Amino acid sequence: MREFNHNNDPHRRYNPLINEWVLVSPHRATRPWQGQTEAVNEEKRPEFDATCYLCPGNVRANGEQNPNYESTFVFDNDFAALKQEKVQFEQNPDDIFFKTQPERGISRVVCFSPRHDLTLPEMDLETIENVVKTWQFQYEDLGKIDFINHVQIFENKGAIMGCSNPHPHGQIWAQSSLPTLVQKTQHNLSEYFQKHGKTLLEDYLKQELQKNERIVIENEHFVVLVPFWAIWPFETMIVSKRPVSRITDFTTDEVSDFAKTLKKLTAKYDNVFNTSFPYSSGIHQSPTDGKSHPEWHFHMHFYPPLLRSASVKKFMVGYEMMGESQRDITPEKSAELLKSLSDVHYKSR
Amino acid sequence: MREFNHNNDPHRRYNPLINEWVLVSPHRATRPWQGQTEAVNEEKRPEFDATCYLCPGNVRANGEQNPNYESTFVFDNDFAALKQEKVQFEQNPDDIFFKTQPERGISRVVCFSPRHDLTLPEMDLETIENVVKTWQFQYEDLGKIDFINHVQIFENKGAIMGCSNPHPHGQIWAQSSLPTLVQKTQHNLSEYFQKHGKTLLEDYLKQELQKNERIVIENEHFVVLVPFWAIWPFETMIVSKRPVSRITDFTTDEVSDFAKTLKKLTAKYDNVFNTSFPYSSGIHQSPTDGKSHPEWHFHMHFYPPLLRSASVKKFMVGYEMMGESQRDITPEKSAELLKSLSDVHYKSR
Ligand SMILES: O=P(O)(O)O[C@H]1O[C@H](CO)[C@@H](O)[C@H](O)[C@H]1O
Ligand SMILES: O=P(O)(O)O[C@H]1O[C@H](CO)[C@@H](O)[C@H](O)[C@H]1O
Repeated sequence: MREFNHNNDPHRRYNPLINEWVLVSPHRATRPWQGQTEAVNEEKRPEFDATCYLCPGNVRANGEQNPNYESTFVFDNDFAALKQEKVQFEQNPDDIFFKTQPERGISRVVCFSPRHDLTLPEMDLETIENVVKTWQFQYEDLGKIDFINHVQIFENKGAIMGCSNPHPHGQIWAQSSLPTLVQKTQHNLSEYFQKHGKTLLEDYLKQELQKNERIVIENEHFVVLVPFWAIWPFETMIVSKRPVSRITDFTTDEVSDFAKTLKKLTAKYDNVFNTSFPYSSGIHQSPTDGKSHPEWHFHMHFYPPLLRSASVKKFMVGYEMMGESQRDITPEKSAELLKSLSDVHYKSR
Repeated sequence: MREFNHNNDPHRRYNPLINEWVLVSPHRATRPWQGQTEAVNEEKRPEFDATCYLCPGNVRANGEQNPNYESTFVFDNDFAALKQEKVQFEQNPDDIFFKTQPERGISRVVCFSPRHDLTLPEMDLETIENVVKTWQFQYEDLGKIDFINHVQIFENKGAIMGCSNPHPHGQIWAQSSLPTLVQKTQHNLSEYFQKHGKTLLEDYLKQELQKNERIVIENEHFVVLVPFWAIWPFETMIVSKRPVSRITDFTTDEVSDFAKTLKKLTAKYDNVFNTSFPYSSGIHQSPTDGKSHPEWHFHMHFYPPLLRSASVKKFMVGYEMMGESQRDITPEKSAELLKSLSDVHYKSR
């Protein structure tokens, strides 16, 4: 019998963070594509757009006027998915098929910069550091509210990721419950920590650095890698070298190193197809439930949908929705490509 | 304190099939949309397309010629995600971060009809019955292969769902392992069956029929409903009234009733926005591992992405990818709309 070859043979890989598998079909990367292609938006945006509800000084849908902000600007989402009000509800314990939980929370929008025309990789380091400091402040500010046990910081970048406004911004959804995926991750991180007295990601990182097959960026305080179990074609994860539980534990040096890492990674992304690279990103860190969480190790996921070109994405559809996630190009090949690309943005070269 | 109102207050609902929650934000259904809109393809297709690799008599990418088929036509996918070959592999048991499994399987394409211009709701009942019989035959044929333990039947309909050819067709991915979601579902179904001696879906169905709030279609042998825990705006599930484990257990009456149900449901879908309604659908049923699986109860999921109009879809992005699935319109409202729509296709009225 022939030896298994992970560059060519279909196989499954295990994700220990959420206890799920992904199907990898490396040989399929070359199949032709006649399906849907996405619009590539290369329009040059102005620094200020009078019709943008996120630009400084403009009036939003609810009639409020944005201040003339000069760095970041945070406000409560005008169409929040979560509300703060506490309501009265009693679940009938026999109702196993209709289990319901009222959910309290706060949704905020975080504008990264007053400049309408920029994206993260095009901002200077000071601006990105301000974004990181804003995330720190928000995590603290929301986390200390009594009924808030989890603060989800994320960004949807690009129209293809459901982003409805190109002004550089992210969101924060803070809520009472741990969301499903966070709950699962916490379960697996706790189990590992109890058994080994170290965080799962500390040990994983050590082995990844030794193998050096999926590392994209490494600096003093952070590593960017394509997880062994990544599902999106160019998925990456930023992991702090120190096992800190939360963004507010960063030292000044770590804040500045994290900003540099964000700039370099997103510049590499834009350099893949010489286009503004869409993605959803989000930070996973300790819940804010007042308990100690040594099992949590700060990391940030990047899930970009593009596969073959600026206009052809990976569809997570029938098989993926019924069975499990599937990818064609291997994580090793993606990491090799991302590593080889310049970390200087193509527009500034 | 005000009473909880599920039509207006943010809440979470529990999905007992996969042990996950979904965040429901009913009040958010009215937020304006300035984001990406999808192309609506209203092009009229010819009955036969000489450039289509699925039409009868045409030559496919690998040089093979399709027969002049008259009802359904099944062939091994030319760009299969799975391969049959057995390879040699030994996992190092210490490698907890790099767990790998070679995976064997077979991917097939199922053309529903020789007619290039039709979709399921536009086909006559006999044609749809043939599709159901083909699924039965394939489930049996693939399932009896020694190394095949699971047969996933699914359809990606519409370019927006990654379908690369509008010729009416579905796919089958049959493989050695139970895919992640099937494994999870099996776990929860088994637990219920062991405890209650009945299938989870038998009891759920009984309660849904009593409540009659989320039922879309009911006939002698099948029910279509919007699950209490649905995540997609117009998600539905077809459930057999009899707790049969697999499609091959259908009686002749059930085959014909199932075909009618498929036709009516997909016609209703097209009638939502008077457009060919995209979705991914897939059948969940007993694994083919040779064991008895009384816990499995035949059901078929439909996951359509559209939300507000033929061109605006629901994006499952940042929060959903990091936290948990989120929906705006409630399952009850969607069910009410789907129920009220005619089950006769808008084009044939
Ligand atoms: O096999 P197809 O139709 O070319 O491919 C489509 O369905 C597959 C199974 O859901 C997905 O993995 C692909 O991303 C999608 O484009
Ligand atoms: O809040 P936004 O940017 O309008 O909405 C976007 O992000 C949300 C959170 O991931 C998603 O639920 C929406 O589907 C998406 O369009």
